[in-house]
Amino acid sequence: MREQFHGELASLSEQMVEMTQLAGSAINRATRALLDADLVLAESVITADEELDRIQAAIEEKSLELLARQQPVATDLRTIVTGLRMTADLERMGDLARHVAKLARLRYPASPIPAQLHSTILEMGQVAERVVAKTGSVIAGRDLVMASELEQDDDQMDRLHRELFTVLLDPNWDGGVEAAVDVTLCGRFYERFADHAVSVARRVTFLVTGERPPVPHHAS
Amino acid sequence: MREQFHGELASLSEQMVEMTQLAGSAINRATRALLDADLVLAESVITADEELDRIQAAIEEKSLELLARQQPVATDLRTIVTGLRMTADLERMGDLARHVAKLARLRYPASPIPAQLHSTILEMGQVAERVVAKTGSVIAGRDLVMASELEQDDDQMDRLHRELFTVLLDPNWDGGVEAAVDVTLCGRFYERFADHAVSVARRVTFLVTGERPPVPHHAS
Repeated sequence: MREQFHGELASLSEQMVEMTQLAGSAINRATRALLDADLVLAESVITADEELDRIQAAIEEKSLELLARQQPVATDLRTIVTGLRMTADLERMGDLARHVAKLARLRYPASPIPAQLHSTILEMGQVAERVVAKTGSVIAGRDLVMASELEQDDDQMDRLHRELFTVLLDPNWDGGVEAAVDVTLCGRFYERFADHAVSVARRVTFLVTGERPPVPHHAS
Repeated sequence: MREQFHGELASLSEQMVEMTQLAGSAINRATRALLDADLVLAESVITADEELDRIQAAIEEKSLELLARQQPVATDLRTIVTGLRMTADLERMGDLARHVAKLARLRYPASPIPAQLHSTILEMGQVAERVVAKTGSVIAGRDLVMASELEQDDDQMDRLHRELFTVLLDPNWDGGVEAAVDVTLCGRFYERFADHAVSVARRVTFLVTGERPPVPHHAS
């Protein structure tokens, strides 16, 4: 009985890892859709988000069932309840990738991102992919070293995010207001994507160590 | 024992209502700080957010304790687990009010919002206050009529949000890029604030009726 229960917990964990893979694939494709003005790719991200929603709903139902049937306490209880919060973060990351893809679709056949900011946004996309891949490893292996690395990736994301504003607010900015609005929104989507990844990693850390990691200095 | 348990559930619900009051006060003051460039008010919102975080942490701990001690099933279990999600939404609403206040502080002694958009942002602030007040009533009284009204308020918020972009992207926009960036961010903060309120109301509706409300057409 106990063994079966832990098998079910492991299966929930695997589904969360699958969510990180889907979110990673989504943000990768959304970034390419955004920079290459690729409508087909953008549509694929928008459609694929349903799968993340479906897995989240399945995890929620299964978690409630386990709580009712197994009546777990202590660590097992905390694992399930924390898992529900992590799942919500992962689902939200899918939404944010979808937001990026929707912006790509809205401005098609142009790219919403002016040429001078392509490399910064590309890098934000790469950092986003990296953090979500690490989030998967943190969930799968409870790897606290990687959880701490992830914080540094998030610092890099924040630097890139500030870089966007530096370019936008430079008196020499000649990209116009529409591009400034689009860049502002995209920047926010990538930054939030990484924030949610950090949030997941922190929850795993808290589960493993019992200690809440300090609130990051760049909390905003 | 049973009675005490339901008393404890009621107390969690009261704390959530208190969170809506704090979030409502925060968004009211943040809007005034933003439009009147009031630094003291902005600082007060930023500081007050800690209280929301504190209540959230308290609700989480109490919920885990109730799950472990009472081993609830069926509706009681769902009420506690759903309450955890609602609490996360309410805490996030406080964060969003704080984001608005931080933008007011960043641009002080100017207002980040150009005069031509003051009335739209003021209205967004009023809608935000209205939705969070209704959210409180929905939590306190499980009032499904109000939950449905709240959806309409959210539609109004979306209209106001689109109105911002119409003004920003008009060729006659002369507010400059910095104001466009600030307006874009603020618009997003108010819109997300209302989204979280809707999310809370939907969770209550689901608890009461057992049916998930349809995903809103404006889901973005």
